[in-house]
Amino acid sequence: MRRRITGFSNPTVKFLRSLRDKKHRRREGMFLAEGLRLLTDAREAGRVPRMLVMAEARAPHPLLAPLEEAVDVAGGEILETTPDILSKITGKDNPQALAGVFDEFDTSLGALDRNAAPIWLVAQALRDPGNLGTMLRTGDAVGAGGLILLDDCADPFSVEAVRASMGAVFTQAIARARWAEFIAWLRHEPTTGTAASPGQLVAASLRDAVDYRGAPYAAPCFVLVGNESQGLPEEYEAACDLRVTMPMRGRADSLNAAVAAAVLAYEVLATLERAPD
Amino acid sequence: MRRRITGFSNPTVKFLRSLRDKKHRRREGMFLAEGLRLLTDAREAGRVPRMLVMAEARAPHPLLAPLEEAVDVAGGEILETTPDILSKITGKDNPQALAGVFDEFDTSLGALDRNAAPIWLVAQALRDPGNLGTMLRTGDAVGAGGLILLDDCADPFSVEAVRASMGAVFTQAIARARWAEFIAWLRHEPTTGTAASPGQLVAASLRDAVDYRGAPYAAPCFVLVGNESQGLPEEYEAACDLRVTMPMRGRADSLNAAVAAAVLAYEVLATLERAPD
Repeated sequence: MRRRITGFSNPTVKFLRSLRDKKHRRREGMFLAEGLRLLTDAREAGRVPRMLVMAEARAPHPLLAPLEEAVDVAGGEILETTPDILSKITGKDNPQALAGVFDEFDTSLGALDRNAAPIWLVAQALRDPGNLGTMLRTGDAVGAGGLILLDDCADPFSVEAVRASMGAVFTQAIARARWAEFIAWLRHEPTTGTAASPGQLVAASLRDAVDYRGAPYAAPCFVLVGNESQGLPEEYEAACDLRVTMPMRGRADSLNAAVAAAVLAYEVLATLERAPD
Repeated sequence: MRRRITGFSNPTVKFLRSLRDKKHRRREGMFLAEGLRLLTDAREAGRVPRMLVMAEARAPHPLLAPLEEAVDVAGGEILETTPDILSKITGKDNPQALAGVFDEFDTSLGALDRNAAPIWLVAQALRDPGNLGTMLRTGDAVGAGGLILLDDCADPFSVEAVRASMGAVFTQAIARARWAEFIAWLRHEPTTGTAASPGQLVAASLRDAVDYRGAPYAAPCFVLVGNESQGLPEEYEAACDLRVTMPMRGRADSLNAAVAAAVLAYEVLATLERAPD
């Protein structure tokens, strides 16, 4: 369905703008993603926006037609509006901008199949949406199953996190849980009848840790990083199966959280792929 | 010297606010760093602000006295102001905030001693100040000598880059150069009379590349990453001594630039430390 919107006070414009705000995203269960490339990544991952917004005089593009078609087929809406209203929605002064409204995904732990991937990323109280999106992007690169967000993390459906994920928000599973819930889930051996491992929890740590190179990683390996300024609570580290340390040759005693997750995840990947089955 | 400032229209307040803007930083040759921890890192690295700004009713702190003393000894100024004016300067609503004004450092290539460290990070047209600061932080962690910024990069002295560097802006050397200048400098063997290597240039690449694990890294190793959306120009990659590739198990074909630099730099570090002298 196509619709034209020409008024700034149109309720749909207000609705779209409200999705920049976490409270409204939670209430509506929807989020915004922007850009033809990101929306194409979404489409290719099987996620079609329920609403697609663009300027009425937008230049044609070979990727736009399949996107519009997918929205039509899925019964979604295509909104055409003025460049002025579009820039009010996207916050960008770009008449080629494109925005899509997506349903938020199921983010319950129970929806994860831990044996679907050898690596999972886990973040605790991660506050920066850019770091969160970067972890999703890294997760895609290392073949992780998804990102588990513990305690009070930034919103994975914020515009900043979605953008930094470079499309991985649509391909990585995302779960949100409190620590107690997560550790209970992790330690509860799945009753699959197989010899599948319940999962190994690994954290970068300065306490009682082994060198991250050559550590005995095992799949499914859950790579845990903590809050940007506080790191992980001591009891969380204590509950890990493996604490590893990375060289710190300078003055600082820690890496950026998304960087630490990536260095560790790539080491886990190399170890698991070298290991015999 | 101590001074009290109580008026919003005071020229010093205007000057301090102007340092949030790149144009003014370049003209003044000065930049702002914020927070007691960052300013303490700077002091310990031998960098003392020429001006220290805080609220007049600021709570005492054991790290504050040595900082004030260092400023006094260096002949700098300590400004006390109202919480309102302070938050206008720092952009934060925090009466405990602290800001220091530093002279920008020499960022000429000629000031670098390439044999002072086994690893150097190099970024080309890096646009995000957070990525830039994160690369400085990673450089500190891997024991890099510094960060070389090629072509038009974000400003390493912006508030965002300084903050993301977590103090490494004060400990890592920073150089800015055009590509042609850099490659001429790199290829010009230093006439030290020693057998020192002129330097190996390594880029993460998809073209004609070897696995990043086990690649023949050699010190001083210059780890090069490109622009966030364009990557490296083809001729820059072609000029590298070594092109390496990292596994990409998902849909995306690249990592965040600061993440790629870190994964690669940690691999270089492990290789160089394992190698016999």
